[in-house]
Amino acid sequence: MSLINENFLELQDSYLFSTIAKKVAKFTEENPNKKIIKLGIGDVTRPIVPACVQAMHKAVDEVGTEEGFKGYGPEQGYEFLRKAIVKNDYQSRGIKILEDEIFVSDGAKCDCGNIVDIFAIDNKVAITDPVYPVYIDTNVMSGRSGKYNKNTETYENIIYLPVTEKNKFKPELPKEKVDMIYLCYPNNPTGTVLTKEDLKQWIEYAKKNKSIILYDAAYEAFITEKNVPHSIYEIEGAKEVAIEFKSYSKKAGFTGIRCGYVVIPKEVTGYTKDGNEVSFNRLWNRRTCTKFNGVSYITQRAVEATYTEEGKKQIMQNIKYYMENAKIIKEGLENAGYTTYGGINSPYVWLKVPEGMTSWEFFDKLLEEANVVGTPGSGFGLHGEGYFRLTAFGTKENTIEAIERIKNWKIN
Amino acid sequence: MSLINENFLELQDSYLFSTIAKKVAKFTEENPNKKIIKLGIGDVTRPIVPACVQAMHKAVDEVGTEEGFKGYGPEQGYEFLRKAIVKNDYQSRGIKILEDEIFVSDGAKCDCGNIVDIFAIDNKVAITDPVYPVYIDTNVMSGRSGKYNKNTETYENIIYLPVTEKNKFKPELPKEKVDMIYLCYPNNPTGTVLTKEDLKQWIEYAKKNKSIILYDAAYEAFITEKNVPHSIYEIEGAKEVAIEFKSYSKKAGFTGIRCGYVVIPKEVTGYTKDGNEVSFNRLWNRRTCTKFNGVSYITQRAVEATYTEEGKKQIMQNIKYYMENAKIIKEGLENAGYTTYGGINSPYVWLKVPEGMTSWEFFDKLLEEANVVGTPGSGFGLHGEGYFRLTAFGTKENTIEAIERIKNWKIN
Repeated sequence: MSLINENFLELQDSYLFSTIAKKVAKFTEENPNKKIIKLGIGDVTRPIVPACVQAMHKAVDEVGTEEGFKGYGPEQGYEFLRKAIVKNDYQSRGIKILEDEIFVSDGAKCDCGNIVDIFAIDNKVAITDPVYPVYIDTNVMSGRSGKYNKNTETYENIIYLPVTEKNKFKPELPKEKVDMIYLCYPNNPTGTVLTKEDLKQWIEYAKKNKSIILYDAAYEAFITEKNVPHSIYEIEGAKEVAIEFKSYSKKAGFTGIRCGYVVIPKEVTGYTKDGNEVSFNRLWNRRTCTKFNGVSYITQRAVEATYTEEGKKQIMQNIKYYMENAKIIKEGLENAGYTTYGGINSPYVWLKVPEGMTSWEFFDKLLEEANVVGTPGSGFGLHGEGYFRLTAFGTKENTIEAIERIKNWKIN
Repeated sequence: MSLINENFLELQDSYLFSTIAKKVAKFTEENPNKKIIKLGIGDVTRPIVPACVQAMHKAVDEVGTEEGFKGYGPEQGYEFLRKAIVKNDYQSRGIKILEDEIFVSDGAKCDCGNIVDIFAIDNKVAITDPVYPVYIDTNVMSGRSGKYNKNTETYENIIYLPVTEKNKFKPELPKEKVDMIYLCYPNNPTGTVLTKEDLKQWIEYAKKNKSIILYDAAYEAFITEKNVPHSIYEIEGAKEVAIEFKSYSKKAGFTGIRCGYVVIPKEVTGYTKDGNEVSFNRLWNRRTCTKFNGVSYITQRAVEATYTEEGKKQIMQNIKYYMENAKIIKEGLENAGYTTYGGINSPYVWLKVPEGMTSWEFFDKLLEEANVVGTPGSGFGLHGEGYFRLTAFGTKENTIEAIERIKNWKIN
């Protein structure tokens, strides 16, 4: 009798985006003449830049010829791309990362999800709250979370690290020992950051406790301030305790092209129960070769083009475009009397909903009265309650109009 | 202290292709003037067909414009592609498969590897031998194999199903109860097939024992004979017990473009330990949404083009080309006195090495004396010993020359 993985039954269905979609659909049906502006979902809107488009055309032509055809490539990614990553994302910041510490993948979501394969299921996991749900759900599926407690709305074996106004959105070090720590900075959903000094404490904690930091840097391209690290490896000692995830989804608009990469320095080690050290790089390499077959050659050429002078300029224009939107949102909301976080080093603005209102109540009113759609903070976790996320990924015109509406809006 | 997944330590390193590469490199260095012909690795050589090239150019142009840009797509694949799959691969054969029973992925290797996520680790697994190593290794990594026994060269919890000349390459039904059964037909590496009647027994076994058949049909496009099923769902009752894997790698030359799909009919159920039925389609959908973000839009448009009239014709030409090579290999070897299997419904020819020789001894002599590279059967498992694989994926000229050399070759 074929048994199922019963850990899946502990997953809590998230109705966040489907509930939003239903509410918006209902409102549209009842108010067909109202123009709704959506600043809710974290998907980009700017087209793929010309440098990448050209690179893909060239690669497509190549694989259509006998001489240029490419079959199976290296599971870890082509050398040309791993070289470009090492040079542009690390050497340029004075960080020494080797080519075989880079694993090119079809996106950071897959990497963040699959990484749990190389860890024992009895590791204790700490996760910030509110949070990108993939970190929790993949630990539930693999049996690391324990049971879900309906009363507390938490999993029994997950250590939640609140990030709220109270701690200035800087998670406190866990009081107990944890083995795996998920940090995403610039943060989704709050848009807030950790400085180098903040991260230093985490590196120290991890070294002391032999924990691993799983550092999701998917939004690093949006950083504008100096003391905010683009890579966790900017902090001394991080190469011994941190695995870093990078993505081209938001940076280069590749949400539909699919590419990211993981960095696992060779120094990062885990332990057997007997206390023997094992390199996570070696384990991940084995997993990659066994369960993955590399990213499309065409995609890898497109990513390579993001590192050319032309590509960099074009991508920077898109990022500027989004960050201007973020500024419009942030300043507009503050002028309208809202308290906001994020939006300076991140495309997300996290606003405090007016006193006495829940995130969902604010969502409903904003939709009905200003016809603007955002995301209720409570959808990202317990400590997201009382907050609301707006994204800078819309068009400039829509962003300006949405903020004008909010400014002129008197909540009923 | 961060613990590793110790199941990884049970993995046996396969040196098959790296040993081959080393031996070939050494020979080349010592004999720089000898022209080596490689019929070893299962990678294709024909370029991507024009219909797919055109579709990719069009898609690349699209994503470079504001109106045509595509961000996140459905995790399970675009509707246009799932419709085309249902219509062309199933309806056309009288099989009713629903769109939401299809999950488009970045290749059958990933799917065959990831599928273990939704099964309990205490399931008993049966695997044919010789075999594509991914089935075993992914079960080792997830803890389903038990310990490796160095004396018997087997894992304690894996049931091996020999496929050799003795049983005409048709695995016998397991004597004990097994819960998960891997079948790959047309088979890699032996090139042999199961008929509809053969498969019927397996469906009956699975129904009786509530087992799941994991059916890898990556090579179905090469089938030329009538009674060989292209899909396991051609057999009555299969929709209750079988999950099917399909690939565009060999069919359309997409080894470097990366696309495949899994079919999980809604009727396929597993059980909780308490005996409750759970749909594997629902579990896989949840896994897909949590750990995957869909395949590149550009790739999906290329796959769609394989189903157009033009695309079908062009792909059929490539398949014919490879199958002519297979014929050249098979007939040539038989004329030269070898016993061969496969090569009729598959691009692989599985030959018996001369009496008293091991697969590796034959490999060495063939390389040194005829300067032809193939793959020793023992590299695919214990029961591959005494056999040797040649692939039809080379150029016609090279294939003809290789076979001429073997014909004229007197083994020293």
